Amino acid sequence: MNAVDLINKTKKNVPLTDNEIKWLINSYTAGELPDYQMSAWLMAVCFNGLTEEETLALTYAMRDSGDILHLDIPMTADKHSTGGVGDKTSLIIGPTAAACGVCMAKMSGRGLGHTGGTIDKLESIKGFRTDLSVHEFEDILHKIGFSVISQSDSLCPADKKIYALRNATGTVNSIPLICASIMSKKLATNADVLLLDVKYGSGAFMKSRSDAEKLAAIMEKIGKSAGKKCRAVVTDMDIPLGKNIGNALEVEEAINILRGNERGRLYEICIDLTADILELAGKGNRSECVRMAENAISSGTALDVFRKTIELQGGNPAVCDDISLLPHSRFSYKVKAAHDMKISGFDTEELGMVSLLLGAGRIEKDDRIDMSAGIVMNVRPGDCIMAGETIMTLYSTICSDFSEAAVRAVNAVISEKINYHIPLT
Amino acid sequence: MNAVDLINKTKKNVPLTDNEIKWLINSYTAGELPDYQMSAWLMAVCFNGLTEEETLALTYAMRDSGDILHLDIPMTADKHSTGGVGDKTSLIIGPTAAACGVCMAKMSGRGLGHTGGTIDKLESIKGFRTDLSVHEFEDILHKIGFSVISQSDSLCPADKKIYALRNATGTVNSIPLICASIMSKKLATNADVLLLDVKYGSGAFMKSRSDAEKLAAIMEKIGKSAGKKCRAVVTDMDIPLGKNIGNALEVEEAINILRGNERGRLYEICIDLTADILELAGKGNRSECVRMAENAISSGTALDVFRKTIELQGGNPAVCDDISLLPHSRFSYKVKAAHDMKISGFDTEELGMVSLLLGAGRIEKDDRIDMSAGIVMNVRPGDCIMAGETIMTLYSTICSDFSEAAVRAVNAVISEKINYHIPLT
Repeated sequence: MNAVDLINKTKKNVPLTDNEIKWLINSYTAGELPDYQMSAWLMAVCFNGLTEEETLALTYAMRDSGDILHLDIPMTADKHSTGGVGDKTSLIIGPTAAACGVCMAKMSGRGLGHTGGTIDKLESIKGFRTDLSVHEFEDILHKIGFSVISQSDSLCPADKKIYALRNATGTVNSIPLICASIMSKKLATNADVLLLDVKYGSGAFMKSRSDAEKLAAIMEKIGKSAGKKCRAVVTDMDIPLGKNIGNALEVEEAINILRGNERGRLYEICIDLTADILELAGKGNRSECVRMAENAISSGTALDVFRKTIELQGGNPAVCDDISLLPHSRFSYKVKAAHDMKISGFDTEELGMVSLLLGAGRIEKDDRIDMSAGIVMNVRPGDCIMAGETIMTLYSTICSDFSEAAVRAVNAVISEKINYHIPLT
Repeated sequence: MNAVDLINKTKKNVPLTDNEIKWLINSYTAGELPDYQMSAWLMAVCFNGLTEEETLALTYAMRDSGDILHLDIPMTADKHSTGGVGDKTSLIIGPTAAACGVCMAKMSGRGLGHTGGTIDKLESIKGFRTDLSVHEFEDILHKIGFSVISQSDSLCPADKKIYALRNATGTVNSIPLICASIMSKKLATNADVLLLDVKYGSGAFMKSRSDAEKLAAIMEKIGKSAGKKCRAVVTDMDIPLGKNIGNALEVEEAINILRGNERGRLYEICIDLTADILELAGKGNRSECVRMAENAISSGTALDVFRKTIELQGGNPAVCDDISLLPHSRFSYKVKAAHDMKISGFDTEELGMVSLLLGAGRIEKDDRIDMSAGIVMNVRPGDCIMAGETIMTLYSTICSDFSEAAVRAVNAVISEKINYHIPLT
């Protein structure tokens, strides 16, 4: 086989065979195909897309580039979000589904850029370890049904290499490439039940609902083709999920939800997604599954699972009862309304960037994170606030000068001026 | 500036500024921009094209990546063909235009793949040197008005690097990239009069007339923008130009034309293209220029120029009077008609490949050429021939086994079986 011929085929919209795709991926992973040929092919894919068959072949080729996890557990479930700002649903859904009898074996990555990672959030709990051996992971899953392990380097090396290249060549935004990247990792992690949550909106990879639906459809198809009980749903990320953005701040909000102290959009989404997992795992019909999820939170059993998981993974379980034990920032800054305004929405991605500036995330892969840093939102779209009232509070320990973050935070708020029509009396 | 941003702009069809294009080309030529980013950008260009302004900026940036030739001659002319099979027009037009008083300063490349190069053809004349110094080149031009020099490495290094990358990444076929590659070299060669002959058809880069016209239009525009007297014409390459393909064989045919011994399509095209150059150089109106060109051949002055150029460049000028002095092949093979047939056409590119197989061209850049090898066609489209008659003769010195070449040669002939309707008497 010849790389130029395969590039030309994709360029001319002629589908590649399974073997051709396997050859491309294997040669590239082995270092035999140079970066410049792979990047030309990836760009052709960005323009012409791939067929479903090609996307499946690509996913399998990437999955098979490394190890595939085999746990000694009859049935495991995993949930994946395509990344968003303030998305702490995994911290809530994991313990809740486990409390309902579904073994939640979550392998997760670290955050990069404006989106956070579940691993980073959990590591804001003092002592919490995610670099477990497969044996430790299995052991915790046997004991309590929920564990989170950081992604092993031996899984999907092809994806790691291709992802870095896509990042450097403007070839990130392509539905089949995003699909293959996510699904190859999920199939290598090898859970039996797979819930895929595709975010769309200003804070997500997918900016439009229709693109998110396309991605969801092809991911679900691939999951099912691979023999998984799989469902993909789409959720709106035009506003941050919940009030808090930042590692310890998000753990705090998740604990508040698990305690049953908070209702609202985040709670509803978590109940919905948990019910999806329970349904896929055959725990009952929709309304039964919703009720089970609600009961797990209101009864405190979901929080019990979380407390136990924290303990088994080396963390301090007391945070579940006393959130003051989480890291707290040294500095804070209240972003206030300059005039009376009605909040129409947020540029969620920009809020993610503000959080990054405050130290809550990584710009480069090896950057250190300020666990205490982040944002707490005081308002929601539709709210009217008066001049001088707080829109959001910024937190940081490593950054005491909030000037740049504050300016960008103000710009991330989409608002209308309120025009009063008060009749003179 | 950031390469990913520029790649994304082109991917999203947002035109780059002159400075952005200059930065891309300069960074790449300097080795600061990696191949994989350039190839991703080139592939995006293949899909979205470039605006006229971008194509001009790209041409200038590539031209300015190396030296620009400045000859001590008031007015020089150059003619460029986009490459074709059996295209020996430069060997005829050069001396003919020079005989009419236009200084033909031709810088040329070597052949690669199925198309031949003027330099290779001339080097089939024993002793002929094309590695002239600029001073020698000027000197010959002053003396006789026609000289051919091989392209200097100091001209357009950006084009060399980009061309090699395009070849390896399926990004050859793009009108703005082809245009910038040709025009950057032509503008660096810096002739005042520029005739561009864009070939189309099965033997050419451009397969369709409409693509050839697009390429011709943009090249002419760029030539004029750069202050050149410039014209681009398109010519059909669906059949080989003339009867002979291969280096010495093409010199032989060119000499026959210059001797006035041969008329037909090749002769007509050469008169037309020469008249174009004379017109651009201000030698008269169309009919006057056509007459001047015809007279240069019929009077023998064009052949006199060629004889003198050969002598001045170290070759044996006697070939002009005795073509048996050209290299002759050791082996030959007649490809005969298997049945009575009418010739409808040829796959000209495939004939080029047959010629390559016989040793007449290079597959890799450093391959040695068999100067004697090639094909002489016995038939033209429209001809009817009987079973056993010769369609073409294959020649080679390095290859005595003609089996593969003969099979491919037969397949390159497009023919219809003749059905006789002879009434019984």
